[in-house]
Amino acid sequence: MMRTRPLKVALLGCGVVGSEVARIMTTHADDLAARVGAPVELAGVAVRRPNRVREGVPAHLITTDAVELVKRDDVDVVVEVIGGIEPARGLITTAMEHGASVVSANKALLAEDGAALHAAAVEHGVDLYYEAAVAGAIPLIRPLRESLAGDKVNRVLGIVNGTTNFVLDRMDSTGAGYSDSLDEATALGYAEADPTADVEGFDAAAKAAILAGIAFHTRVTAADVHREGITEVTAADIASAKRMGCVVKLLAICERSADGKSVTARVHPAMIPLSHPLASVREAYNAVFVEADAAGQLMFYGPGAGGAPTASAVLGDLVAVCRNKLNGATGPGESAYTRLPVSPMGDVVTRYHVSLDVADRAGVLAQVAAVFAEHGVSIDTVRQQGKDGEASLVVVTHRAPDAALSGTVEALRKLETVRGVASIMRVEGE
Amino acid sequence: MMRTRPLKVALLGCGVVGSEVARIMTTHADDLAARVGAPVELAGVAVRRPNRVREGVPAHLITTDAVELVKRDDVDVVVEVIGGIEPARGLITTAMEHGASVVSANKALLAEDGAALHAAAVEHGVDLYYEAAVAGAIPLIRPLRESLAGDKVNRVLGIVNGTTNFVLDRMDSTGAGYSDSLDEATALGYAEADPTADVEGFDAAAKAAILAGIAFHTRVTAADVHREGITEVTAADIASAKRMGCVVKLLAICERSADGKSVTARVHPAMIPLSHPLASVREAYNAVFVEADAAGQLMFYGPGAGGAPTASAVLGDLVAVCRNKLNGATGPGESAYTRLPVSPMGDVVTRYHVSLDVADRAGVLAQVAAVFAEHGVSIDTVRQQGKDGEASLVVVTHRAPDAALSGTVEALRKLETVRGVASIMRVEGE
Repeated sequence: MMRTRPLKVALLGCGVVGSEVARIMTTHADDLAARVGAPVELAGVAVRRPNRVREGVPAHLITTDAVELVKRDDVDVVVEVIGGIEPARGLITTAMEHGASVVSANKALLAEDGAALHAAAVEHGVDLYYEAAVAGAIPLIRPLRESLAGDKVNRVLGIVNGTTNFVLDRMDSTGAGYSDSLDEATALGYAEADPTADVEGFDAAAKAAILAGIAFHTRVTAADVHREGITEVTAADIASAKRMGCVVKLLAICERSADGKSVTARVHPAMIPLSHPLASVREAYNAVFVEADAAGQLMFYGPGAGGAPTASAVLGDLVAVCRNKLNGATGPGESAYTRLPVSPMGDVVTRYHVSLDVADRAGVLAQVAAVFAEHGVSIDTVRQQGKDGEASLVVVTHRAPDAALSGTVEALRKLETVRGVASIMRVEGE
Repeated sequence: MMRTRPLKVALLGCGVVGSEVARIMTTHADDLAARVGAPVELAGVAVRRPNRVREGVPAHLITTDAVELVKRDDVDVVVEVIGGIEPARGLITTAMEHGASVVSANKALLAEDGAALHAAAVEHGVDLYYEAAVAGAIPLIRPLRESLAGDKVNRVLGIVNGTTNFVLDRMDSTGAGYSDSLDEATALGYAEADPTADVEGFDAAAKAAILAGIAFHTRVTAADVHREGITEVTAADIASAKRMGCVVKLLAICERSADGKSVTARVHPAMIPLSHPLASVREAYNAVFVEADAAGQLMFYGPGAGGAPTASAVLGDLVAVCRNKLNGATGPGESAYTRLPVSPMGDVVTRYHVSLDVADRAGVLAQVAAVFAEHGVSIDTVRQQGKDGEASLVVVTHRAPDAALSGTVEALRKLETVRGVASIMRVEGE
């Protein structure tokens, strides 16, 4: 049954992920051919620095002219592992115009411009697959898009950034502060020299946008995602979480609203109870919970980044789009028919852990409690600690809209007895 | 873009799973239509007892003539949720001969006769999907077959039977024996009136066969799977596991041999350390670890049985095969090109926990240790407990072939100082 003409693959980028893709395509060529039903060959590898030695990649395949490569008539599939918006977007679009299906690991691009890219794929009758864009090797896009296609997903909750999970895990296990833990992550290769995209939550927000769009069959871009990073998480927050039987994690949370008429997507640090399965996700691992009407609670866990795991996801997609090419068909594309709008953060309903520095005198708790009550935020527990005329007050609330909590905090700051709001953190996973 | 002629679905069986499938097809008809690209309608529901009231299933769709139903020209997809070998096999085959794609939840049939059914699907140009056959709602077949299609899977290790996990979990948390815990499971609806298929490991062995075949791209039937149930697990085994910092789980384990030239598949109770993620899988939940060359360790977790979760998996497959029908294509079928043979249990290499009742006298340990050494089984730890002239000896070994352990046990039984072999349990997950 094996077709003899090979399927030709253009690889854009040959860094950590690209070189693994090229390596596996070579070493596992027989397996790939058997699984696809035809040989799969590298047609060319576009790089910026052609003179760098790339083990296992034949020199004659290296080119610096990515545009010419994606335009080639004999290219069936383009694998884009450059990252960033441009030139990736232009190259992917050109590839599709020339009839190539695309496999991409580009979360930033998909989260910014997924709708246009999907439209281009439909227009040109090609596939656009991007399992590797979210949570590395963990199958997540395909399960959401295909396995749960007959179900109704209500919530996606996960740890989708390995760098920040590593930093928070170190803070938790060593008691160290944010800077020291980030330094350690950098030294060990878990954080990049410029860690902004990770620690400020941009990376996780892009993934949340992609997951929310697929889960709820609507369009969500990175700009729709409420985003807070981990740079302001302190050792005191971690210690306070511990006292509550919690750990602090950077979570991506996508939810359908209670009335089903809108969705929310957000990325922020949150406390989750130690008994929650996400609490035990250590180091740079990722894990995502999916809650669906019929399926119930599912969890997917694995390495969320790294060359080989990401290459595994890219190659799974490559086999699928190659099979589709042979069948003359395309796989499931964008599904955005619900057109559910994305609600602002103020509409999100959750619990809060609020630390206040207050004057150590009688009546302060009553004053503070009154402010919460005025804003309709019901208090679950309060812990008071006094020392030398100063005191701290830790309030944990019941579920309330984010806007109500913001109003509460604003009013608290105006109280003469409140010296400062030391931290506000959401409490999830209960 | 919506096609007006609906896709017609014949449902075989309307029990716990079938009635959920029918319900969701009705209540979520608009969503299914949007996701498929055409309306999806029930053409008929074949049942054995037509007079039973089935809420939400229109009476005119009910039939007792399943054969006539699957032969109907207007049926595009047959969903089989009857279970068992016959009449399911005959109906599926007839359905394919008449051009219908098949979605099945039938692990026993797929594990016994998967190759022939896949061949029939290819012959008639239709799909055969069965995500619901393994681990209920947890996406596992699709991730293994598609997401990891570009990777090399080396090991699948999981809890794939909810009933036995419930029983073992109760034994662990209450200290009760096997019978009392099974009674509790039956009373709570977690075990069937005749629990044989679950407690003797037949159900898990069928799932192991399916997973091994897909993971290693070869053919594995239920008969190839070494199978031990949980009926002989005692409260003493559970207590002994606890002392070692372990829990006892019924595991399905599929492995590629060290030389890559064969595979093994087995189902048996085993001790796993509390630190292993599978140790915290409680009650009737399922979870499966997959280890692959590039992806590393992935875990999939969720409800492994039940009407709604199983229906979720069936409907995900239904959407996929309906989409394929519209595209005039078929999805990935059987991939068994490696033709790797299945090795016997004696070749499996793992660790063992052996409890012996021995005479309480000097020199016994030396005798016992000599027997292990003669058979090439290296001892990791020994624990000795004496009481009233009798003593127990608990030996935990290093990794050794199962055949070597069997030889050791046979020789131990012949020692005059060994009164009995109280239990042998494998130790996994380390």
